[in-house]
Amino acid sequence: MIGASPPKPKPIVKRRKKRRRPKAPAQNESTRVQILQSAAAAFRSHGYHGATVQRIAAALRMEKGNLYYYFRNKEEILFACHQYSLDRLIRLLDEIAGSDESPDEKIRTLIVALVHTIVDELHGTTLFTDLVALSPAHLKTIIARRDCVDRGLRRIIADGIATGAFGDRDAKLLSFAILGAVNWIPRWFKPGGPASSTAIADSFASYLIAGLRHR
Amino acid sequence: MIGASPPKPKPIVKRRKKRRRPKAPAQNESTRVQILQSAAAAFRSHGYHGATVQRIAAALRMEKGNLYYYFRNKEEILFACHQYSLDRLIRLLDEIAGSDESPDEKIRTLIVALVHTIVDELHGTTLFTDLVALSPAHLKTIIARRDCVDRGLRRIIADGIATGAFGDRDAKLLSFAILGAVNWIPRWFKPGGPASSTAIADSFASYLIAGLRHR
Repeated sequence: MIGASPPKPKPIVKRRKKRRRPKAPAQNESTRVQILQSAAAAFRSHGYHGATVQRIAAALRMEKGNLYYYFRNKEEILFACHQYSLDRLIRLLDEIAGSDESPDEKIRTLIVALVHTIVDELHGTTLFTDLVALSPAHLKTIIARRDCVDRGLRRIIADGIATGAFGDRDAKLLSFAILGAVNWIPRWFKPGGPASSTAIADSFASYLIAGLRHR
Repeated sequence: MIGASPPKPKPIVKRRKKRRRPKAPAQNESTRVQILQSAAAAFRSHGYHGATVQRIAAALRMEKGNLYYYFRNKEEILFACHQYSLDRLIRLLDEIAGSDESPDEKIRTLIVALVHTIVDELHGTTLFTDLVALSPAHLKTIIARRDCVDRGLRRIIADGIATGAFGDRDAKLLSFAILGAVNWIPRWFKPGGPASSTAIADSFASYLIAGLRHR
């Protein structure tokens, strides 16, 4: 068209190069879980700051670039570790809430699941730790879901107190004591050591329930 | 002397500048403890990596340079926090070992002291955490002394089992459960919150001892 302005040249904008997750040809759920387990083992041995993505990938004989199909960075792996454990526990709490087991049995089921999640699933690590390294948005999500587990346990204890199955004590403090005992396991547990996860789960459940029953 | 070689010129050696602790005119024990408490509060709020020496000093309205009269660096402060808590606990264990209290009473005394050390002395932090940040030599010292506390508690439980005061269970696993419950307190304790350290100490001691008594 006469008089129309010439087409504008494309603006030259310097963009900061951003690491994008390449489109994965096929994300494999079991590879994803393997990465979480390898990361959890690395976090356990070297701390979050000491564990590199390189190391996590190398333990799986995987190229670092390949790992980036699954996770953008180390923080995202840490977040996924938390989500993975919390998914299982919250699902279990929902099942327990709908069941007609006694408060004793419910607590036992929950303690046993907690021990197995901590010891067997994520190599004794990260379930309730390393929160400082999470981004603010991820931290908020994890804290909200952790609180959900705390409240679930507290509700079972409160029910037990209400029905007289447990002694009349502060359900909140008791739930913190139980979660502490369980969450501390990664600090002393040695894979291949004398106590199996089943023995620990059974021993902890019996001890921690016995104290609840006492009046 | 004729023929004697001339005095050697002083060799010019480039030395790496090392931060030396300046000679303190008067190291004050209460200032030292205040620094540990300020550091513990900073570690709690910001994590070990997020807490700077600047921040620790600022909270005490102290010049950073002044703080270096007491501690060479942040790692040394962390080490001193651990030593401070462990000194108290190991002294207490020695006292308990020599007393003729019952196993129940001994465990109660120890749990109450642990809770107060964790909550009141070092603002709910660092007693058993942040080990990854310690230098290898300091880590070795702290682990050996922590093991000493672990063994002390385990011995009291084993004595209780032997005399029949406690049910026949694995003393090692029980001691881990107790230490876990107590060491987890910093994760949920809010200074100024509804539960005082005395209420927590009493509640935890009663609950954790009740489970031991159960057969």
